[in-house]
Amino acid sequence: MSALGMQVRIDAAGNLRGFYAGAGPEAPRILLGSHLDTVPNAGAFDGVLGVVLAVALLESLEGHKLPFGIEVVGFSEEEGVRFGVPFIGSRALVGRLDSELLSRQDEHGESVREAIRKFGLDVDELPQALLREDVLGYVEFHIEQGPMLESLGRPLGAVDAIVGQNRLEFTFVGRANHAGTTPMHLRHDAVAAAAEWIVVVEETARRAENLVATIGLMETRPGVANVIAAEARITLDIRHASDDVRTQTLENLTRKAETIAAARNITVKRRVLLAQPAVAMDRFLVGQIEQAIRKAGCEPHRMASGAGHDAMILAQKIPAAMIFLRTPGGVSHDPAESVQREDVVKALECGHHLLAQLATSREFLGRTCRA
Amino acid sequence: MSALGMQVRIDAAGNLRGFYAGAGPEAPRILLGSHLDTVPNAGAFDGVLGVVLAVALLESLEGHKLPFGIEVVGFSEEEGVRFGVPFIGSRALVGRLDSELLSRQDEHGESVREAIRKFGLDVDELPQALLREDVLGYVEFHIEQGPMLESLGRPLGAVDAIVGQNRLEFTFVGRANHAGTTPMHLRHDAVAAAAEWIVVVEETARRAENLVATIGLMETRPGVANVIAAEARITLDIRHASDDVRTQTLENLTRKAETIAAARNITVKRRVLLAQPAVAMDRFLVGQIEQAIRKAGCEPHRMASGAGHDAMILAQKIPAAMIFLRTPGGVSHDPAESVQREDVVKALECGHHLLAQLATSREFLGRTCRA
Repeated sequence: MSALGMQVRIDAAGNLRGFYAGAGPEAPRILLGSHLDTVPNAGAFDGVLGVVLAVALLESLEGHKLPFGIEVVGFSEEEGVRFGVPFIGSRALVGRLDSELLSRQDEHGESVREAIRKFGLDVDELPQALLREDVLGYVEFHIEQGPMLESLGRPLGAVDAIVGQNRLEFTFVGRANHAGTTPMHLRHDAVAAAAEWIVVVEETARRAENLVATIGLMETRPGVANVIAAEARITLDIRHASDDVRTQTLENLTRKAETIAAARNITVKRRVLLAQPAVAMDRFLVGQIEQAIRKAGCEPHRMASGAGHDAMILAQKIPAAMIFLRTPGGVSHDPAESVQREDVVKALECGHHLLAQLATSREFLGRTCRA
Repeated sequence: MSALGMQVRIDAAGNLRGFYAGAGPEAPRILLGSHLDTVPNAGAFDGVLGVVLAVALLESLEGHKLPFGIEVVGFSEEEGVRFGVPFIGSRALVGRLDSELLSRQDEHGESVREAIRKFGLDVDELPQALLREDVLGYVEFHIEQGPMLESLGRPLGAVDAIVGQNRLEFTFVGRANHAGTTPMHLRHDAVAAAAEWIVVVEETARRAENLVATIGLMETRPGVANVIAAEARITLDIRHASDDVRTQTLENLTRKAETIAAARNITVKRRVLLAQPAVAMDRFLVGQIEQAIRKAGCEPHRMASGAGHDAMILAQKIPAAMIFLRTPGGVSHDPAESVQREDVVKALECGHHLLAQLATSREFLGRTCRA
């Protein structure tokens, strides 16, 4: 970025930020970027590809000035690996890196605040990380991390929403008994109840459009081969771009769990671990991205992101949207994670067209006044 | 037993044995008994009730001699808690307490052989624990340890078989993936496959008569709420009085597991942990027991035992049968284990009638010659 003549700094939350000036000192700006951190045993593309793509895009401008400046942001801590809370970097831009979050500790008892200080940064300067008032929007390139684009044979997707999500624990509680002496009709089998419900969960999710529901964990008690299980504890992860669809489905599934339990004369308890509403991407930007993908010679696929991204945080304050790149095999968070070179080329082309469109869009540039 | 004038000894396997002589030195003998040991956190009736009932029965004879002697056996180690192998006491009577079993160690590294020596017994005298050639049969009173008799409102049951049993491990292996970004139709979900199969297992067992099938354990990997499970490991315990029904059902279920896995493009592995054939009780004795139960004013219920018992071991060498006593709530291996006083009275009455019937049965007494 320095080589491109950009002003480069690291803000107090550790975000790497480079500014490519616009035409004239009064020009507003847009943000391009993604995150620089990753998970243990990760691949090479999750996050950082979006940062590198943004820089490559500016490089290809060859110094040409647009009616807006472009700030590239490499977010510092998106995955949440160290402190158990994701999006620490992007939260700083929207003023939500608060003292509770700063006090949060890693497994060695070191707080976010201390980690920032040790890195040579000053928490008191966090206000300078905040979004300026003249920011028109944020666009993020990111690998899909799922198999959807590949299955459709499309290199690029236009993300129109980040799904809302619930994570819950359901515990079916029956009665332990002898696996040999208790006839089938006199059992109160927690595992059988849980299994019946898991089948319903999967069927429901398959029938609903774009809904995903996952039972990632089952734990059984006493968990012995020759004892009927007294308890089956399972997790449910349910996501959809519409909060109504998600919460309605969750209520239906909960009622179904209760019906299944009641029919077996057992009980089921529900505990909510996470409830996160869906975040819509900016409609105008999504439309522009679709146009740009088409101009790059690809058929765009409009889709919701099933995972959270920094764009979700920025959307709290500014128009935001994302462009997904096809992910071979849907493999991510794994050393086998990859992208196809020609898809990256298409993404760059798409970025070019998008910048050109935005640079000539009265609607987009007119947004400044409203910000 | 000494007070009744019986000859009492403890054999080299620790079985407590008392002999009530028959009419004349040439009289054959029958065995009555059950086990004296129990499990940790147990109730007061599992096993020992059958020994006490046998002694009470002889006490009520008031010295009257029958055409057969009666040996009461309190078996020493039926549950298998200490050495992980059940029926150590009764195995000694049929000559199957072999040197491999004697070398088996408890969790402190002490062998069966050492435990016998420490108890003041001599392994070299094991041959004297063997069944004599003049034994006509074995009858065991035992609590049902299940809810069947209670649900039918009957105090006593005539056991016509000990069920055969398989214990297996089935491992469904799919592919881990992101719970948010992987649409339902592109998943290879091991938990969903296992759940689908568990439902089939339960339905199959419910449709089949007197078959029980239990999934007591499920373990999931990675076992994380937001990751589609790559692996679901479950146990299957399946039991039936007919080996054909059991093995045929197991093969059907295995094929069904493979079909379910194949439809999801995942695999399933099967590992057999235990395969134990059914043991039939002696038909003549079972019929006599039913008669005796009727004479005691009860409606007998002919049933298979879903759990193993010493009678199963003795049946290898001599005619054997069991009488079950109703178990309130089916609760056993628990301090809440109980029996109803009036059921014990009925069991004693039944025992009386049985002894009287056998004492006058040419068919039964004629068996001596064949033994």
